[in-house]
Amino acid sequence: MFDNLPNEVTVFEVGPRDGLQNESKHIETADKVALIEAVARAGLKQIEVTSFVSPKWIPQLADGAQVVSALTLPADVSISALVPNLKGYEAAKASGLKQINLFLSASEAHSKKNINKSVAEAINTMKEVADAALQDGMRLRCYVSTVFACPYEGPVSISAVLKVVEGLVAIGVHEISLGDTIGAANPLQVKQVLDALRGLISFERLALHFHDTRGTALANVVAGIESGVTIFDSSLGGLGGCPYAPGASGNLATEDLVYMLHGMGIRTGIDLSSLVEAGALAQKLLGKELPGRYLRAELAARAKACAKVGAE
Amino acid sequence: MFDNLPNEVTVFEVGPRDGLQNESKHIETADKVALIEAVARAGLKQIEVTSFVSPKWIPQLADGAQVVSALTLPADVSISALVPNLKGYEAAKASGLKQINLFLSASEAHSKKNINKSVAEAINTMKEVADAALQDGMRLRCYVSTVFACPYEGPVSISAVLKVVEGLVAIGVHEISLGDTIGAANPLQVKQVLDALRGLISFERLALHFHDTRGTALANVVAGIESGVTIFDSSLGGLGGCPYAPGASGNLATEDLVYMLHGMGIRTGIDLSSLVEAGALAQKLLGKELPGRYLRAELAARAKACAKVGAE
Repeated sequence: MFDNLPNEVTVFEVGPRDGLQNESKHIETADKVALIEAVARAGLKQIEVTSFVSPKWIPQLADGAQVVSALTLPADVSISALVPNLKGYEAAKASGLKQINLFLSASEAHSKKNINKSVAEAINTMKEVADAALQDGMRLRCYVSTVFACPYEGPVSISAVLKVVEGLVAIGVHEISLGDTIGAANPLQVKQVLDALRGLISFERLALHFHDTRGTALANVVAGIESGVTIFDSSLGGLGGCPYAPGASGNLATEDLVYMLHGMGIRTGIDLSSLVEAGALAQKLLGKELPGRYLRAELAARAKACAKVGAE
Repeated sequence: MFDNLPNEVTVFEVGPRDGLQNESKHIETADKVALIEAVARAGLKQIEVTSFVSPKWIPQLADGAQVVSALTLPADVSISALVPNLKGYEAAKASGLKQINLFLSASEAHSKKNINKSVAEAINTMKEVADAALQDGMRLRCYVSTVFACPYEGPVSISAVLKVVEGLVAIGVHEISLGDTIGAANPLQVKQVLDALRGLISFERLALHFHDTRGTALANVVAGIESGVTIFDSSLGGLGGCPYAPGASGNLATEDLVYMLHGMGIRTGIDLSSLVEAGALAQKLLGKELPGRYLRAELAARAKACAKVGAE
């Protein structure tokens, strides 16, 4: 174990989109922009900033185009947005984005529930968007949900995952992010899925998207790294990822991921202290504590340090 | 990776002691007994039930002897208590316990702060207790704190850890639990420490005690398993472990550990559903939510299921 650790890992930040789309509190466009810029200041180079889904479904991100046009970011930061269909694609393109992120499910039941299409139908629809986007020179990422377990079907077969990945490779998607939508995966399963995918797709094009619902996210990251994956999705403070209830956890927190990677001598280009500042800003904007463990421990330690100084 | 996973792992439950000693709320002896019995009903075979530390320091566990004498447990459950010195040992022995758990630190600064002794002095004092206990046919476990990092010194050298383990082996301690007291360890470090210990002690006598302060506990367990350790400490619902502040996490939650192990096909003898019942009881007794992720997700999912039924 750990004989071939990568020197560097790419952290793909999903908080501004996956996080904020699940929040009921209204966040001003200017505040979203400030949050994204704070994330970029911490050194994140891949940020999903919004979605171009109908505001009927996700009113929280109805200001996607305004967010994109208001951002001032270092030139080496790549931003992208979630896009469900051609209409969304046109809006994303009009906003000036150079990367869009598509999504579908590995399990039939989740696909039906989420977008009312079978997996095969979802791939066909996606091909229309992908063809247009590739012609426009866009970079394409695709999230695959329910790779490790489905909330309706339970365990998902590896052959179902292989079929979806084959379909996405055929379409020409540049990067595929395999998602543990309900945070049920374990490290052995991660290894088994990745072993099955070897040869089907270059692992440089593969990302892993873990949820920390049951505390296993970083253990799964370790299995991913050992298997040769070097792109991991995470969310500032653990924002979003459809947690069941207040207090339950969804997305893997970016700070937890970066803390572990740096400890293992793996570079990310991210400054953990600045990341905590961004997390504190997110908590302020949302008016609540986020579930990320490093963030909580760090902010509690800082508060304690301040209280001590105050008492002396 | 994962070519030699163990068939079985021992989970050592520290919640009733490490958890309750950090709680300000008064818990009745009968409630402590009910909690320990609930933990045993879930299948835990190794439970640290209390401590025999001066009630001046830990008034929460002043009823240690009453707890031990009131317990009704299956014959294959081993209970033990934390013991700081000869006086505590005599009290533990008088209570009828067959195992005691000692403790010391790997770092000088933590040792001084915690028990006002150097590490060498701590080993000498421990030898007195150990000699008496071994003569009485007791089983001896020893916790080593600050193995991976010290809150006062920062990183702890592997040579300091080796020295302590050598001292404990010489004393005749049966089991040594290596603790990540402030939850700062990472999987690479875990592997490096264990590689250095190979040959010095049989790994069957080694346990790992991780804290989830920064979300890394299960990732560290994976590194421990890969390195050949098969005993892991954890705490019901993540109780205790000196978290910095409300909301921050201390001990690795037993449910999170068991969930991951079972998912990887590793037996524990524990029934996860009964464990959640015990966790719910702990929350009720303490009047607050515990930080364990599986517990939170599971209780939230159950509450949701109930609400649904209610609405129909």
